[in-house]
Amino acid sequence: MTRFRLLVEYDGGPFVGWQRQENGPSIQQAIEDAVFAFCQERTSSVAAGRTDAGVHALGQVVHLDLMRDCSADTLREAVNFHLKPQPIAILSAQAVAPDFHARFSATGRRYLYRIVNRRAPLVLERGRAWWLPGSLDTDAMAVAAGRLIGRHDFTSFRSSICQAPSPVKTLDRLSVERAGEEIRIEAAARSFLHHQVRNMVGSLKLVGEGRWSADDLSAALEACDRRTAGPTAPPEGLYLVAVAY
Amino acid sequence: MTRFRLLVEYDGGPFVGWQRQENGPSIQQAIEDAVFAFCQERTSSVAAGRTDAGVHALGQVVHLDLMRDCSADTLREAVNFHLKPQPIAILSAQAVAPDFHARFSATGRRYLYRIVNRRAPLVLERGRAWWLPGSLDTDAMAVAAGRLIGRHDFTSFRSSICQAPSPVKTLDRLSVERAGEEIRIEAAARSFLHHQVRNMVGSLKLVGEGRWSADDLSAALEACDRRTAGPTAPPEGLYLVAVAY
Repeated sequence: MTRFRLLVEYDGGPFVGWQRQENGPSIQQAIEDAVFAFCQERTSSVAAGRTDAGVHALGQVVHLDLMRDCSADTLREAVNFHLKPQPIAILSAQAVAPDFHARFSATGRRYLYRIVNRRAPLVLERGRAWWLPGSLDTDAMAVAAGRLIGRHDFTSFRSSICQAPSPVKTLDRLSVERAGEEIRIEAAARSFLHHQVRNMVGSLKLVGEGRWSADDLSAALEACDRRTAGPTAPPEGLYLVAVAY
Repeated sequence: MTRFRLLVEYDGGPFVGWQRQENGPSIQQAIEDAVFAFCQERTSSVAAGRTDAGVHALGQVVHLDLMRDCSADTLREAVNFHLKPQPIAILSAQAVAPDFHARFSATGRRYLYRIVNRRAPLVLERGRAWWLPGSLDTDAMAVAAGRLIGRHDFTSFRSSICQAPSPVKTLDRLSVERAGEEIRIEAAARSFLHHQVRNMVGSLKLVGEGRWSADDLSAALEACDRRTAGPTAPPEGLYLVAVAY
């Protein structure tokens, strides 16, 4: 048996999320079905980040085990062939040690959240970013974001269905940068709570609109109560960019 | 009567091109229908570049005349409202002098052609770039591109249905740059022949693959015969970026 590590890109739009669910197509199922079409093996794949419905990945990492003796390149090409026309692609594949675990071996995860801040509705970026037509003060957002960096109890930014054993996480990076009409928010940590990035972005939007100060953001963090923080930003702006091991 | 100048973004994928045609939806018709929905006026709009089926625009310029007395901002918002859910947006609108002509007043046009050069099929860039999985020598492409810059008879890169009075054009810029897996080809000129950018890109691909030298490209240019140059690159990689006046 060989364990393979896959680097995967996908458009989360048409899927219920990474994980297999009864209520619609998942990325996990699409990949496992493509593997089955290639080698008639039912495999169980594990991802570094179980992205939600609509969330994209530029560099999701997945592992799976196969009895079939094949090269990593053959697996990549065959799975890409059978994935068509679904918007999922295996960027690279490699054989790894049997103790490599896409989720538990990960030492860092990096997310990007894209906002397009302009009057006109989105066209080429539709489904790829959060459209916010009102003016946003990105300098204020960048300063406020600094209040969330470090080791904190992130209960205020945690989904009610989050299964993590502890709400305490260390946020290594939360940057806000504007490039023309696009605002790029990058977040890095060993791991995140469920909805944490989208909930932090939803609160930073309030800061950008001038409705919240950086102190308001700190107060929400310290309250350790989900109801004190801003709403959850929509999934289409979020990208799992890279996973470190 | 007021003449308005519109800056327009669109995803060319679902359209038969800018121009009204019997065989399917055009961007021109979508905009004119949205204007009609707003003010019940049948207007005839003119674009700086009559993009082909599947070609995108980041900054198409359009003019049209209206009897209705309204502000440019009102027009922009109303047309965007009525364009939904089609992938077309008016980025800005302004009232201009009645002798402004989107096509004939233009003094320069800038196009971008995007290639994604990687083994894996396109996912997030599907329909937004030309997928070329084989390796491409972008340095060789950039050097060869220089052979096309300047004033030449571009018959070899002209579609057989081109209606321009002369095949002689002055190409001001043709740059080839790689950024990771993306190759960006930028072309600027006062005006272009029909299919000229896509035909130049199709020949530069042959250079990138090592099948053509820069001298082969020069020979194709000098032959003044469409059959001597490379095939037409697909429309989905092409963007009309900006028009100068």
